[in-house]
Amino acid sequence: MPNKRIQIFDTTLRDGEQVPGCQLNTEEKIEVAQALESLGVDVMEVGFPISSPGDFESVQKIASIIKNSTVCALSRAVEKDIEVAAEAIAKAARPRIHTGIGTSDSHIFDKLKSTRENVLERGVAAVKYAKRFVEDVEFYAEDAGRTDNEYLAQVIEAVIAAGATVVNIPDTTGYCLPWQYGEKIKFLKENVIGIDNAIISTHCHNDLGLATANSIAGVANGAGQIECTINGIGERAGNASLEEVVMILRQHSDLKFDTGINTKCLKSMSELVSTKMRMPVQPNKAIVGANAFAHSSGIHQDGVIKSRETYEIIDPLEVGVDESSIVLTARSGRAALNYRAKKLGFDVPREVIEELYKQFLVIADEKKVVQDSDLIVLFSQTAVKTA
Amino acid sequence: MPNKRIQIFDTTLRDGEQVPGCQLNTEEKIEVAQALESLGVDVMEVGFPISSPGDFESVQKIASIIKNSTVCALSRAVEKDIEVAAEAIAKAARPRIHTGIGTSDSHIFDKLKSTRENVLERGVAAVKYAKRFVEDVEFYAEDAGRTDNEYLAQVIEAVIAAGATVVNIPDTTGYCLPWQYGEKIKFLKENVIGIDNAIISTHCHNDLGLATANSIAGVANGAGQIECTINGIGERAGNASLEEVVMILRQHSDLKFDTGINTKCLKSMSELVSTKMRMPVQPNKAIVGANAFAHSSGIHQDGVIKSRETYEIIDPLEVGVDESSIVLTARSGRAALNYRAKKLGFDVPREVIEELYKQFLVIADEKKVVQDSDLIVLFSQTAVKTA
Repeated sequence: MPNKRIQIFDTTLRDGEQVPGCQLNTEEKIEVAQALESLGVDVMEVGFPISSPGDFESVQKIASIIKNSTVCALSRAVEKDIEVAAEAIAKAARPRIHTGIGTSDSHIFDKLKSTRENVLERGVAAVKYAKRFVEDVEFYAEDAGRTDNEYLAQVIEAVIAAGATVVNIPDTTGYCLPWQYGEKIKFLKENVIGIDNAIISTHCHNDLGLATANSIAGVANGAGQIECTINGIGERAGNASLEEVVMILRQHSDLKFDTGINTKCLKSMSELVSTKMRMPVQPNKAIVGANAFAHSSGIHQDGVIKSRETYEIIDPLEVGVDESSIVLTARSGRAALNYRAKKLGFDVPREVIEELYKQFLVIADEKKVVQDSDLIVLFSQTAVKTA
Repeated sequence: MPNKRIQIFDTTLRDGEQVPGCQLNTEEKIEVAQALESLGVDVMEVGFPISSPGDFESVQKIASIIKNSTVCALSRAVEKDIEVAAEAIAKAARPRIHTGIGTSDSHIFDKLKSTRENVLERGVAAVKYAKRFVEDVEFYAEDAGRTDNEYLAQVIEAVIAAGATVVNIPDTTGYCLPWQYGEKIKFLKENVIGIDNAIISTHCHNDLGLATANSIAGVANGAGQIECTINGIGERAGNASLEEVVMILRQHSDLKFDTGINTKCLKSMSELVSTKMRMPVQPNKAIVGANAFAHSSGIHQDGVIKSRETYEIIDPLEVGVDESSIVLTARSGRAALNYRAKKLGFDVPREVIEELYKQFLVIADEKKVVQDSDLIVLFSQTAVKTA
C-alpha cells in the first residue's frame, strides 16, 4: 500500500503573523508566501481579512500570485467576515475559506454567552454561507482540545453534512497530552457519520511544549492535515513547528506517511521567517537551530567522527544545513583535537598528543570555545604541517 | 492513594554546560547550582570531572556547598573516570555517581568496536566499581532509544543486580516517538527482574521536538525520574525542558504525579541560565518565553478579557511571570482597544468607538505594535479622561 499523503497547512502568515512584533507589510508577506510555495506546502493560510485593511490587501495580492498551494483566509462564523474573506481570495487558483466557532464550555458560556445548540447552528450556517463562495471550506471547532468528545462529534457531523471539506480540531490552549489528543481524533474517526467525506486537521498549540507530539498523535489516529508554522511561531508559545512534524514523518518511515515538502529548503525558510518577522530561533531549536547539528562533548565528538549515525539521526544536508560541526571546548576529547588538527593540515605525532591535549584544556577552560586560530598556534609548536 | 513523587534530575550544568558557548567558570556554576537548589531539584548533575581540571574543581566546590539536592557527577564505564568523579563529589551531602556505556548496535559495533556480552560486562563492572565509593549509583544505557528491548532488559537487570539505584534509559539521539519510548519503559517495568529495586529515569533529547512528550510518556509508563535542563538546553537540539515537564505534571492532575519544584521560581531560573550561559530563549518558548503569556489577536484578547481561562491554561503568576499581556496590533479588536483605554484612564463613549477603532487600525497597519503613547494621543481627541 502506498504511504498516505499528509497535507501540510502552513499558518505562518496568519497565526504566526498575529504575534506581537511579527507583523509584515504586504511586500514581505508576498516574499514569504512565494518561499512557502517553493517549500511545497499544500495549503497556506495567509491572513484574517476582516481584521484590517492592510491584512485584506495582503491576502488579495497573495491570492493573485500563488498557483500551486491552496490559499486560505480565516473568518469567524459571521457573515460579514466570510464575505470579506471570500472577496480577498476571489482570484486564488485554489481558494479556501476557514471558518468556525468555539465549542468548549469555556468558549460557549464564558466567551460567546451562548448555548451548545446555538453554537452548532451558527457553525453549520457559517459553513453553508462560505460554500456559496468557494467549494473548499474548512471548519474549526475552536478549543476542541477541551471540548467534550460527544458534543464535538455532533458539531463535526453537522458541518460535514453542511459541506465542510476539512474539519479542524484545534488544541487552542495547548492543553492536551499526546494520547488524549490522539484519542480525540480516533473518537471522531469512529463516531462521526460521514467523517470520510472530509479531511481531519490538527492545529496544536505549544503552551506545554507538546504541539509537535500532539500533531503526530493526530495523524497516527486518522488526521490527514497538520496545521503548523515555520519555527513554530504563533500566539503565545506558538504552534507545531512545520520543520519538526515534516522531519518526524520523513524519519519514521514505519508510520507510512509522506508530505510534499522539499526538506532541503527548511533551513533557508527558517532563516527567512526569523529575519523578516524579527523572531529569533533559539540555538537549541530542533532541526533549524544553530546548534541542532553541533557536537561538543568529547564522547559525542568521538562517536560522530567514527560514524555520523552514532549521534545524528538526520543528515544535515537533508534539511539544507551544510554539515554537522565539531565545536572544540573544554568538554572535547583527544579524538576531536586530532580530527581538527588533520583538517587544519597538521599531523600530530602520537607521543605529543597527551601534552598538546593538556595545553588545549588550559586554553579551553579559559576561552570557552577554542578557535582555529588558537589551535594553529598550539599545533605549530610540535605538530608537523602536512598541507 | 497519594500522588507519586517524580524525581527531577537537572543536568543544566552537565549536558547543558557542554554546549558550544555555554561554558561557565566555577563561580558562575556555583550561582546556578544554588539557584537550582532553591528551585527544588531532587538531583543536579554538575559536571564530568575527568573531562578537564576546571570541571573537576567546579564539581568539587559545588559538592561542598549544596545540602538539599543530590549532587551527581558523570563518568564513562572506565575506572579512572569513576575514581575522579568519586573524588570530586566526596564532600557532597548526597553524592551520586552516574556511569554507563552505549548499548545500541551503533554504539557497540561502530563506536566501541565491541560485543554485546562485553558491553554488558563493562556496565556491570562500572556499577560495582562506583559502589565502592558511593551508595547511590545511576547507570545509563547510552542510546537506549535505539537499543533492542530484549538486550536492554538484560543489561538493566544485570546492573540493578550489581547495585545500581537508578537506571537511566536515554533517547540519546532524540529518535523515539512518544508511544515507542513509553512502550520501552513499560517493557522494562514488566520484564526486568528486580526493576522495583531501582528508579527508572528518562533522558530524552529534542532532535525531533519530542523530548518533553517522550519524558511524559516515560513517567506515565513507570519511570520515576526525569532528566531535564532549564530552557531545554543541551547537546544539539537540547534536552527535555525542566519547566515544561514540571508544568505538565502540575496541570494534568489526572496523571497523579507531584514534583518538589517551586514553580514560582521557573521564570527567574530561566533568565539566570539564559544570561549566564549566553543562550537566548526564543519568544515562543513554552512557559518561559517572552510571549508565552502574550495575546495579540482580537479573538484571543476578547476571550482573555472576558475570562482568562478561555485562552490560558496556566496562571502566569504560578511560574513567576507578573501577568499576561494584551499587545495591541492590527489583529486586535475593539474589545482590547476599549480595555486598554480604561487601563489608561479614558472612558470611550460608545458612539465614537467605531471611528477610534478605524484610526487605530491605520496606526497599527503602519506601526506593527501600537504603544500606549500612540493611544494616549488617539484617545485624547475624543474620549473622556477619567483618572
